[in-house]
Amino acid sequence: MATDLEIARAATLLPIGAIAERAGIPEAALIPFGRHKAKLDFSLLRTQADKPRGKLVLVTGISPTAAGEGKTTTTIGLGDALNALGTRTMICLREPSLGPCFGVKGGATGGGRAQVAPMEDINLHFTGDFHAITAANNLLSAMIDNHLYWGNALGIDPRRVTWRRAMDMNDRNLRNMVLGLGGASQGVPREDGFDITVASEVMAIFCLARDLADLQARLGRIIIGQTRDGTSITARDIKADGAMAALLRDALQPNLVQTLEGSPALVHGGPFANIAHGCNSVMATTLGLSLADVVVTEAGFGADLGAEKFLDIKCPSAGLSPDLAVVVATVRALKMHGGVAKSALGPEDVAAVERGVVNLVRHVENMRKFGLPVVVALNKFTTDTDAEIAAVRHAMARIGAEAFLCTHWGEGAAGAAELGRAVQALLAEGHAKYRSLYEPALPLAEKLRTIAREIYHAAEVQIPPAVAARLKRFEEMGFGHVPVCVAKTQYSFSADATRMGAPEGHVLPVREVRLSAGAGFVVAVCGDIMTMPGLPRHPAAEGIGLDADGRIDGLF
Amino acid sequence: MATDLEIARAATLLPIGAIAERAGIPEAALIPFGRHKAKLDFSLLRTQADKPRGKLVLVTGISPTAAGEGKTTTTIGLGDALNALGTRTMICLREPSLGPCFGVKGGATGGGRAQVAPMEDINLHFTGDFHAITAANNLLSAMIDNHLYWGNALGIDPRRVTWRRAMDMNDRNLRNMVLGLGGASQGVPREDGFDITVASEVMAIFCLARDLADLQARLGRIIIGQTRDGTSITARDIKADGAMAALLRDALQPNLVQTLEGSPALVHGGPFANIAHGCNSVMATTLGLSLADVVVTEAGFGADLGAEKFLDIKCPSAGLSPDLAVVVATVRALKMHGGVAKSALGPEDVAAVERGVVNLVRHVENMRKFGLPVVVALNKFTTDTDAEIAAVRHAMARIGAEAFLCTHWGEGAAGAAELGRAVQALLAEGHAKYRSLYEPALPLAEKLRTIAREIYHAAEVQIPPAVAARLKRFEEMGFGHVPVCVAKTQYSFSADATRMGAPEGHVLPVREVRLSAGAGFVVAVCGDIMTMPGLPRHPAAEGIGLDADGRIDGLF
Repeated sequence: MATDLEIARAATLLPIGAIAERAGIPEAALIPFGRHKAKLDFSLLRTQADKPRGKLVLVTGISPTAAGEGKTTTTIGLGDALNALGTRTMICLREPSLGPCFGVKGGATGGGRAQVAPMEDINLHFTGDFHAITAANNLLSAMIDNHLYWGNALGIDPRRVTWRRAMDMNDRNLRNMVLGLGGASQGVPREDGFDITVASEVMAIFCLARDLADLQARLGRIIIGQTRDGTSITARDIKADGAMAALLRDALQPNLVQTLEGSPALVHGGPFANIAHGCNSVMATTLGLSLADVVVTEAGFGADLGAEKFLDIKCPSAGLSPDLAVVVATVRALKMHGGVAKSALGPEDVAAVERGVVNLVRHVENMRKFGLPVVVALNKFTTDTDAEIAAVRHAMARIGAEAFLCTHWGEGAAGAAELGRAVQALLAEGHAKYRSLYEPALPLAEKLRTIAREIYHAAEVQIPPAVAARLKRFEEMGFGHVPVCVAKTQYSFSADATRMGAPEGHVLPVREVRLSAGAGFVVAVCGDIMTMPGLPRHPAAEGIGLDADGRIDGLF
Repeated sequence: MATDLEIARAATLLPIGAIAERAGIPEAALIPFGRHKAKLDFSLLRTQADKPRGKLVLVTGISPTAAGEGKTTTTIGLGDALNALGTRTMICLREPSLGPCFGVKGGATGGGRAQVAPMEDINLHFTGDFHAITAANNLLSAMIDNHLYWGNALGIDPRRVTWRRAMDMNDRNLRNMVLGLGGASQGVPREDGFDITVASEVMAIFCLARDLADLQARLGRIIIGQTRDGTSITARDIKADGAMAALLRDALQPNLVQTLEGSPALVHGGPFANIAHGCNSVMATTLGLSLADVVVTEAGFGADLGAEKFLDIKCPSAGLSPDLAVVVATVRALKMHGGVAKSALGPEDVAAVERGVVNLVRHVENMRKFGLPVVVALNKFTTDTDAEIAAVRHAMARIGAEAFLCTHWGEGAAGAAELGRAVQALLAEGHAKYRSLYEPALPLAEKLRTIAREIYHAAEVQIPPAVAARLKRFEEMGFGHVPVCVAKTQYSFSADATRMGAPEGHVLPVREVRLSAGAGFVVAVCGDIMTMPGLPRHPAAEGIGLDADGRIDGLF
């Protein structure tokens, strides 16, 4: 079987100018990066600002499993299908993170016939956005430590600096360190660590910024730590916000690429879906809506994390009103939710599907709580049996939902045509009545309880007194109106990764809360959240290299 | 007076395609990065490989002072002048480092009317080359620590890992650290530190690589540390060379930009001129020579460091044969070499010029030892008096050299026309008989003594027994044939930064020697060499930001 890289290479890509033309983007707004990538000039965002907006379709998924669900391929396949069906559609995706390309996960440009291209470029440096974000993050760090070094006029407590450095690399050895060693001329010793770039607040800010001015204002609001008496110090206090914005200026312009079938795609920004909100940039989504009749976009992890944050953080912040949710599932993954081990997924097991489908059912019902019509995309594997598929369809019928078999991985647009027609029909009906789950005025702890109750079906939220006091403090500081971003495992509705399916009555333990004042949300950390991944025993990097023609090989 | 940024912005740049056409580069070989930057495809390097080569002019300078000399502006001004005089000329420069843009030094795109543009882009992320180099450097680090973490099958001694991490930032707090803290699942605790990206061996390799295969081979030869029994471990042992080459693949293609007067310029690579060889990439210089009748290129710091390395490291490694050296000086800098403080440079002081000109004289005579004709470019300041200029000319006449007054900073090409005509005449005469200073077969310690004697006029090289033993060990390992790269202060011919002018009979103390096996040279560290700069009390970053139109402001 051909690898994704082989399929991508075999495809003939159109010049990016031709893709732009299809998308209604004038030549003058293109900032080309090679022949198949371009940034879209700020001027385009200005001229498009008053255009009528298209419909917004969110692709989300069941709680992820080791079996894989195919959310990105479905986003691409659905976009291709809609374009093939005559609906002018823009696909909006997150940019892949560089680090995981060298580890276990690999790239994130879809797969099979449902890919955005050029895959090597997008997976590695692309147009440099993540490098710019890394640089902005680390310039702030350098300026903080430089401030300490030159006398600490602001009185920052070096033990209370919460701003960490960032690198787009899976590198566990950078998690915890003591730096500034070597004597008085070499810095100020203190504890620090690196997060992977997608976990940086700069990434979240980048993806929520509505324009350059908003970007700089948000950067300025970043809280980097406290003085001994508890006063918060911001990036603006450090005078870093201007230079950070300068580093991010060009990057903030959305990136245009194409799918293997020639659909235009905006691939821009990519925050974590645990400690951040997990969706591509507001700049890209907004621009896409002004250009196309339909935007198909994706949120990270399962619908309890990515979609909830899309709907409670990104949409309210950006003034977006989504029209439809597509929940992606596979028979294999549902069998895992039904208790089957990955190694035993081969044989038919209808009972396991029936046990595991509760995960899908709950995600569908959750999406309806936001006022959205929902369809299910069932990514077909060759091992799926008719009886297993029927079990999923039956479960969906019971809740008045419909599941559509998708084969875009192998067949491209044609494989998602049925799903595409269903999406067209639902959008034409226009029954969406989007609302976020809670009002801004609700106290932070209540927001958290609302998410836990409505989305996770938790019986209780455990908020230790110190955490409650911090939430209170955030409210006193004027951040009571912001949404809450829950960082918990993506593998379960609960905070326990092993509880698959649709657990009920569990307890959500809140370990700590952090204020992302620039991004504009409070992070509630529930469980062990990894903000700097490690590499496996045999990293993918060992197999990556150049072939005899100097082309990059081994990416997946 | 207009700032460099204002002058650069006021200029009307040509589309990069028009610049390429001027340079004889076919449209198909252009990989555009926006409208005014492009990378040049590997295919062009292949088709140009057999073309006759143009003449190679090296621009170097006196020992730098706080007064500034203007080596980059002279390289650009001379290139513009030659093009204006009808000689098809390509300018080859190093890429600026990002870190110093936020500190004291600022950018490095020339100044006044002698600039390469777009200056904001080139000074910040440009085409992402340095980010790629940083990523490749740090992927190797991550894979080393990951190898230690998963059982250390190669038996690396964690205390003997010499490979450091890199960041393109002035950040002193990263110089020395203990990382891998936090317990068994968080890594392997050990000492480490970050160098600025231009000091990474990956940067030196990038700039010496002749093609992709050579790049990967050199990366594989990097020695990352030793086992307990002293066996060297390479990047190839870690299986990192392929993925590092993949990260660097696109970056290795030279970058084309333009001067404000429309000359083509290849701006590519930029290693430090102390612990590395301080010149732009071999890929760019070689390509330039195949495209143009003359290439004007620049080496870092004074001629004792940059030019010596250009002539003893880069040229032999790349099979280049330079035809002429231009030594840049200013009356002001010569007065400083004559003992005048920077604050007292205003009034005429012919005697100081006469005292300080010895620095220029020696650099000129040194360049002749390489078999090169030499001209002097005297960058004119408004405060220079006729008598002071006459003193320089007189000193030059005594050694049979000629100094040409240059005003390209204020007047562009016209200001370097006289210098340009002299360069044309000398190139037409064709008297260059380039030879490097020493033969590859000379023992490493003798190479070092040769440089110290011939170039620095040192009486003695102090090589402690431990250092001598290491040099011996390098020879036993098969690295006796490589050149020696001296890392010493750029401010003096000696290792003492305060000894300006032309000191004689001094001692060169070698503190340590390092093998850059991938780059292919031995570094002799003579004195305190900073590989990670810090920020000043008031970093330039504080003044950098976006103006009301969203343009970047405050770069210089």
